[in-house]
Amino acid sequence: MDFLSAITDKKLGKPLTTQQIQDFATAAAQGLAPDYQLAAMLMAIRLNGMDARETADLTMAMARSGEMLEPDVGGVPVDKHSTGGVGDTTTLVLAPLVASCGGKVLKMSGRGLGHTGGTIDKLESIPGMRVSLPKETFVDIVRRVGCAVVGQSAELAPADKRLYALRDVTSTVDSVPLIAASILSKKFASGARALVLDVKYGSGAIMDTLEGSIDLAWTMVNIGTHAGRKVTAVLTSMDEPLGTHVGNALEVKEAIDVLAGRVGGDLKRVSLYLGAQMLCASGVTGDMADAEARLTSALESGAGLAKLAEMISAQGGDPRVTEDPSLLPAAPVVRTVTAQRTGVVSRMDTMRLGYIAQSLGAGRRTKDDVIDPAVGFVMRVRLGDALRPGDALAEIHARTEADADRAAQDLREAITLSDALRDQEPLIYAVITPDGIRRLQ
Amino acid sequence: MDFLSAITDKKLGKPLTTQQIQDFATAAAQGLAPDYQLAAMLMAIRLNGMDARETADLTMAMARSGEMLEPDVGGVPVDKHSTGGVGDTTTLVLAPLVASCGGKVLKMSGRGLGHTGGTIDKLESIPGMRVSLPKETFVDIVRRVGCAVVGQSAELAPADKRLYALRDVTSTVDSVPLIAASILSKKFASGARALVLDVKYGSGAIMDTLEGSIDLAWTMVNIGTHAGRKVTAVLTSMDEPLGTHVGNALEVKEAIDVLAGRVGGDLKRVSLYLGAQMLCASGVTGDMADAEARLTSALESGAGLAKLAEMISAQGGDPRVTEDPSLLPAAPVVRTVTAQRTGVVSRMDTMRLGYIAQSLGAGRRTKDDVIDPAVGFVMRVRLGDALRPGDALAEIHARTEADADRAAQDLREAITLSDALRDQEPLIYAVITPDGIRRLQ
Repeated sequence: MDFLSAITDKKLGKPLTTQQIQDFATAAAQGLAPDYQLAAMLMAIRLNGMDARETADLTMAMARSGEMLEPDVGGVPVDKHSTGGVGDTTTLVLAPLVASCGGKVLKMSGRGLGHTGGTIDKLESIPGMRVSLPKETFVDIVRRVGCAVVGQSAELAPADKRLYALRDVTSTVDSVPLIAASILSKKFASGARALVLDVKYGSGAIMDTLEGSIDLAWTMVNIGTHAGRKVTAVLTSMDEPLGTHVGNALEVKEAIDVLAGRVGGDLKRVSLYLGAQMLCASGVTGDMADAEARLTSALESGAGLAKLAEMISAQGGDPRVTEDPSLLPAAPVVRTVTAQRTGVVSRMDTMRLGYIAQSLGAGRRTKDDVIDPAVGFVMRVRLGDALRPGDALAEIHARTEADADRAAQDLREAITLSDALRDQEPLIYAVITPDGIRRLQ
Repeated sequence: MDFLSAITDKKLGKPLTTQQIQDFATAAAQGLAPDYQLAAMLMAIRLNGMDARETADLTMAMARSGEMLEPDVGGVPVDKHSTGGVGDTTTLVLAPLVASCGGKVLKMSGRGLGHTGGTIDKLESIPGMRVSLPKETFVDIVRRVGCAVVGQSAELAPADKRLYALRDVTSTVDSVPLIAASILSKKFASGARALVLDVKYGSGAIMDTLEGSIDLAWTMVNIGTHAGRKVTAVLTSMDEPLGTHVGNALEVKEAIDVLAGRVGGDLKRVSLYLGAQMLCASGVTGDMADAEARLTSALESGAGLAKLAEMISAQGGDPRVTEDPSLLPAAPVVRTVTAQRTGVVSRMDTMRLGYIAQSLGAGRRTKDDVIDPAVGFVMRVRLGDALRPGDALAEIHARTEADADRAAQDLREAITLSDALRDQEPLIYAVITPDGIRRLQ
């Protein structure tokens, strides 16, 4: 394998051949090339890009660098992936709802590395819950219950594992082809035949600009086309946390509250929309209106909450949390942060809110950090709310008083109060399929 | 040291600060950053470039990453560096000539890695010659004799050593700022206060185009200005081998022939011009015409040849080679290659000629290869010569008949005979100083 000539080609801005890309993925997965050559290639890709064919080739080469699951779950295995948001616990709402409507939700999820915990970390706040299951058990739960959420196996897409670790330390994370290939290679390797992507835009999103988010969404939809898998991307706003709860157990509680019909809002709205796309993508129904009606009905009847309990139980957890969220871990210090002036909530620095949760212990700084499931905060305001001094901004759940002090100060700085209301971006901006982009609001 | 943020800045196309560049050089020299981060930075520099200030900062940071010599040689220490040519043995002609006119030529030279041997390899073909000397001995020879040529100490510019090795395996050799900083950091560290650069252009040059060669020349002259050292660059053609002899002992023989007044040609012309620039750069004289007259006189009087003998003797070699070149190693197989058609020599693939010498054993493929001092070839034609079938193209000096067979075939392919004469590029195209570029022909 002449890996150096492939680096040279990419350095000179030439498209890599399918064979060169396969060699790159194999080299990464099997340790056939030294880290410094992989790093040079990653920087060349970051700066010179990859076209649609190259990106699809890279995705499939990374997916095939390890085991490729083709699980028999009694239907089309469907998955949903979010590019990462704050207070975004749609998975715990939509997975049981979609399953209760006949979908087969097969979700392998990464642990969160960054501001807040991943879905797996959230689930682990449920007493007894097991997120590491033998493949057969996992597939059996999806077939029988309709949904299961487990941690990603290290055997899937090993090329991605090595490249992701290198990207993190070589400043090559922010590359659309590399982000897209990393996300989809794992999804395809884990057996998803249909996939709904929640691509965030706004202050807490992985991409800086709306255009960047659209670019990432298109890139992934095009990979699906090349790879013969159904990929739908939905662009949703991350200008404020999606739900009101930020933190692992807090987010599980909020998901339960939504499924129990106790709260509505943006989390519910996005969950129903993404869930409806999943039902369509997996062929349960061909009509979005019908899909949304079915999901709403499952929510109102309590079938979704019952399905969550069933999934938790199948994965070894205590299903009583769905009836009594007080069984979830709780933080010893709970404190309300209040507004210090009159004004309208005109901006939230969502990325910073994520880091506040991390600093309370809800997220990891390094992969060896241990997450505190109980800590986080509950937002008491949304963008556009008019406040007076003393009105609550958020409720902090902290391990210590000192943590709460620091978080209170930081929270005030992350929330901007102004005299005038700014225009808000639409919550669900557009949907992208191989047929094109459609604005929704 | 936050090296990752420096990689990010360069990735985003921002100029690095002086501090960031110093950290980069220190990290490379002292192993404070892993190879993969250095590799990512090198590729980011290759693709996003460096401005004049950054390049000068990098040069000085690399020079200062190890010992900085400030030798007292009884005059301005002057050096000459060529960006690498075929049949280019100007050093062995001009160093004794310049020394015999009062210059102090302090030359630390790298071993050749590539098509042909470096100056050090050529010198080692002289029986007894020592190219690895204690620093004090080396400086003493320069002071006493006026010139010495030794191998580069590993303690000089250790940052360059690590980065050069990495560039070679990450496809980041072809970066003007990195080439310039690599060359000049070693020269400045070895104590050169004045430096004449022979920047090649044409088919055997490091840079593909004339524009590229001019860019490299300007970059190095500007570094000199930033660093307070006198750097002059001369652009000379490498559309054919400079001398007629290619190979280590063969090139020593040709240098002796030039100094003995037995042969003239392009090698003599370029050596006299570069030597005159060295005399001016080191302040021996301020006038190029005077400098060339002095050098010509030293050549005609035999003072240059005597000085070469003196230098060889001081470095432990057998000075009788200057009177009797047959004391140099000779190859067992000598074969003349002839033209197979009528035509004018319209093009030589000089780079390929270099690789033919390498394949005969005159150069190294890897740093562990051992050079055969005796092998190579002597060109019997120059560009523009009109030939008939049977006329000699070159005389091959090989270790085996099989080597000679292969080289003969390759040599015929590297020399193009045409019906019409092509325009030739000027031998000495231009000189670049801080004052500007001046065309010479």
